Amino acid sequence: MTHMAMYSAEFFGTLILILLGDGVVANVSLNKSKAKDAGWIVVTAAWGLAVAVAAYITGWVSGAHLNPAVTIAMAVSGSLDWALVPGYIIFQILGGIVGAALVYVAFKDHFAATDDPDVKLGIFCTAPAIRNYGSNFITEVIGTIILVVGIMGINNANNEVGALSALLAGFLVWVIGLSLGGPTGYAINPARDLGPRIAHAILPIPGKRDSDWSYAYIPVIGPIVGGILGALIYMFFSNMWV
Amino acid sequence: MTHMAMYSAEFFGTLILILLGDGVVANVSLNKSKAKDAGWIVVTAAWGLAVAVAAYITGWVSGAHLNPAVTIAMAVSGSLDWALVPGYIIFQILGGIVGAALVYVAFKDHFAATDDPDVKLGIFCTAPAIRNYGSNFITEVIGTIILVVGIMGINNANNEVGALSALLAGFLVWVIGLSLGGPTGYAINPARDLGPRIAHAILPIPGKRDSDWSYAYIPVIGPIVGGILGALIYMFFSNMWV
Amino acid sequence: MTHMAMYSAEFFGTLILILLGDGVVANVSLNKSKAKDAGWIVVTAAWGLAVAVAAYITGWVSGAHLNPAVTIAMAVSGSLDWALVPGYIIFQILGGIVGAALVYVAFKDHFAATDDPDVKLGIFCTAPAIRNYGSNFITEVIGTIILVVGIMGINNANNEVGALSALLAGFLVWVIGLSLGGPTGYAINPARDLGPRIAHAILPIPGKRDSDWSYAYIPVIGPIVGGILGALIYMFFSNMWV
Amino acid sequence: MTHMAMYSAEFFGTLILILLGDGVVANVSLNKSKAKDAGWIVVTAAWGLAVAVAAYITGWVSGAHLNPAVTIAMAVSGSLDWALVPGYIIFQILGGIVGAALVYVAFKDHFAATDDPDVKLGIFCTAPAIRNYGSNFITEVIGTIILVVGIMGINNANNEVGALSALLAGFLVWVIGLSLGGPTGYAINPARDLGPRIAHAILPIPGKRDSDWSYAYIPVIGPIVGGILGALIYMFFSNMWV
Repeated sequence: MTHMAMYSAEFFGTLILILLGDGVVANVSLNKSKAKDAGWIVVTAAWGLAVAVAAYITGWVSGAHLNPAVTIAMAVSGSLDWALVPGYIIFQILGGIVGAALVYVAFKDHFAATDDPDVKLGIFCTAPAIRNYGSNFITEVIGTIILVVGIMGINNANNEVGALSALLAGFLVWVIGLSLGGPTGYAINPARDLGPRIAHAILPIPGKRDSDWSYAYIPVIGPIVGGILGALIYMFFSNMWV
Repeated sequence: MTHMAMYSAEFFGTLILILLGDGVVANVSLNKSKAKDAGWIVVTAAWGLAVAVAAYITGWVSGAHLNPAVTIAMAVSGSLDWALVPGYIIFQILGGIVGAALVYVAFKDHFAATDDPDVKLGIFCTAPAIRNYGSNFITEVIGTIILVVGIMGINNANNEVGALSALLAGFLVWVIGLSLGGPTGYAINPARDLGPRIAHAILPIPGKRDSDWSYAYIPVIGPIVGGILGALIYMFFSNMWV
Repeated sequence: MTHMAMYSAEFFGTLILILLGDGVVANVSLNKSKAKDAGWIVVTAAWGLAVAVAAYITGWVSGAHLNPAVTIAMAVSGSLDWALVPGYIIFQILGGIVGAALVYVAFKDHFAATDDPDVKLGIFCTAPAIRNYGSNFITEVIGTIILVVGIMGINNANNEVGALSALLAGFLVWVIGLSLGGPTGYAINPARDLGPRIAHAILPIPGKRDSDWSYAYIPVIGPIVGGILGALIYMFFSNMWV
Repeated sequence: MTHMAMYSAEFFGTLILILLGDGVVANVSLNKSKAKDAGWIVVTAAWGLAVAVAAYITGWVSGAHLNPAVTIAMAVSGSLDWALVPGYIIFQILGGIVGAALVYVAFKDHFAATDDPDVKLGIFCTAPAIRNYGSNFITEVIGTIILVVGIMGINNANNEVGALSALLAGFLVWVIGLSLGGPTGYAINPARDLGPRIAHAILPIPGKRDSDWSYAYIPVIGPIVGGILGALIYMFFSNMWV
């Protein structure tokens, strides 16, 4: 597989992830949507299944990281060449930007029918329920540790999950949202947060607020730290289990 | 497999899809139903699982397109003979008509117990949350692109999904509904919309309104355009990934 | 496999099905339960997963019909010896009685905390939302046709579903409930309705009403007719598809 | 596999189970959480998927009991050496303590924003809806019988579930919660209840109440009795089915 094949897969997979993931937030929070206020089960199921769908489409090409924290974790664990990391991350963020822009296109009239600028921003990127950068950082670290440990655990060769792998990755993200998503909105993925935040800044959304850049580094640094810790924790245990 | 085998499978599979799909809308929206107002998770899970069930029953016969947009996309991508396309589409629409009629039969007393003519029409076919033909068209195009790219991606030979294929198609439709269904009700399938709309026009439903023919072409043309674009987009990426 | 092995499997499987199935109705409808009013998604998911669990436990022994309508349909289609049908049905009903009694045991204090006698009866057996024996019969027939066609379709040898079979049967029952369960509570299984109704009549439930025997024959005859029709319909199509 | 490998896997698996399981209760019950009051479907789906994720990570090492009742049941049925039982149980409880402590860390500001001390305790361990030690014991016994019979039934060699095993264990726990969880909160696992209860007693949670030690023995003894009975019941039937 060429580098450009892998990069384009990360771009396209992240685009689909964000189109469906930010899409569900638009669907449940914008005025006049048929899914208005449909609840946490809808939001978390959609993000989980979005991961699964994007991973089936692109996993055989690039591994379907769709997430810089996963990419870095894979490099830390030795299963991805560090030389590919910058390209993976750049194309993931680009996919996030385009995916978020398509959400805006798909829900354009509903953005116009909604006044609250926080709701509009919340469709693109995460915001903490209680703003406390230290606590928010820790919550994102914990969530991303579970993500990385879960991915590495599911795909351990002893499990022989085969074609179930992408679906199980989706269920993993589903449960992280169900269980740990309330305090920060579970970015657990820098591209998922930064890409759409850039889109929010760029797009001509009527009545939009600023893109909350003061918080933007938490869902970038938190997941990266969590990804590295997750890889180290999984390596610690799996070395003991060999 | 004979042509009539394939056509009858598309008829029967679409019948089951619509019986279960329009069924859930009746179930959550008609008066006195035990599932009244059960919410978006119920509607979307049912449509997704309806696809899976219909695809297990008929997939080995005809591929279980159950959707003219998918049929056209398969022809565009070269995996279906164009000569079969008209027959597939006709039998899909016939299946949609009969499936919708059976929903009416199963819920007959509940139709009689419900006054709102918009609710009754909404069981058969989609209506936009904000009527804007241009925007509605675009939303249907985007949803159907995801459907077609998802189906082609899941069933890529490298994934070796085997017997999971139909279930994953169902989960794909589930997430499209969860994430992108709010603006237009996600027809993403001309037979799903036109067949039941014809049934609504024909059936002797008490207190029914007109069948909203002015909107009817959007959920036909939008999905067809989306299906063609989806096939082209998937071919573009998969050519890069070989 | 001996006949007694198969009969005991049908007994035990139906016991588990009803313990979990009637259990969820108790869970969402009895006073002071932590799951009170948890909604249709909870009820239908539980019945579906109950089928899956019971089928994994007993499917390799007896085929896990757990339902006289399925047993009769299998005999009609030639995959079960008619001589086994009476034994299967008797042990299914016995399993239903014992499973329902265990629900009463598990929720005993909650039965005592609940006054409404209709709610108590509704935990054991189905009641129509709008009482109209003709319509209720038809709705049960349609639901059971889908059940039998779905089971036969999923397990068609061409699908090679292997260990997915029981899970898919559960998803099939989930979607039937989601989509068609509102008018009659989707018995679609004489043992599911009659067994617990007998348990309701026998058990010393405080403040209970009569067991609504005037309706009892609908969820027995309806599913049996539906099972036979489902077998015939599936045989009609599968003969065309060979 | 060394004993320490197996013990560490039980520790780590139970840690993840409780982090995600107690996590969802925090998520739906603490003030200002984005998932506040998200309902029973969210709680039960999360506990079920938490089992699946923890089992994929650790199942190939230790069997992923994650539960002293399962460990004892496995010893009763002859598939685990009794000499391993004490170690398994100790490390499961330790995992429960650490997992619960991490929930406190992840939701620290939300604990501070919540006044109700019963809500805070309820995140860690179970409490009965109607306090009646006899009834509560029986409900826990019944739930754990289903758990153990289900696990043994799913993993029966005739089913050949392979990589589906962990997912199906998760769905089993999901349905037990959906159907039988309302009276006692379905501990069905002594480590799930006792470990977090110890954490609650130790942690410096602001405004916390006592740890309700008078109830603590029910969700320990009930599941152990249920586990033993479940193993005996399954052995009874499977001996008949050979």
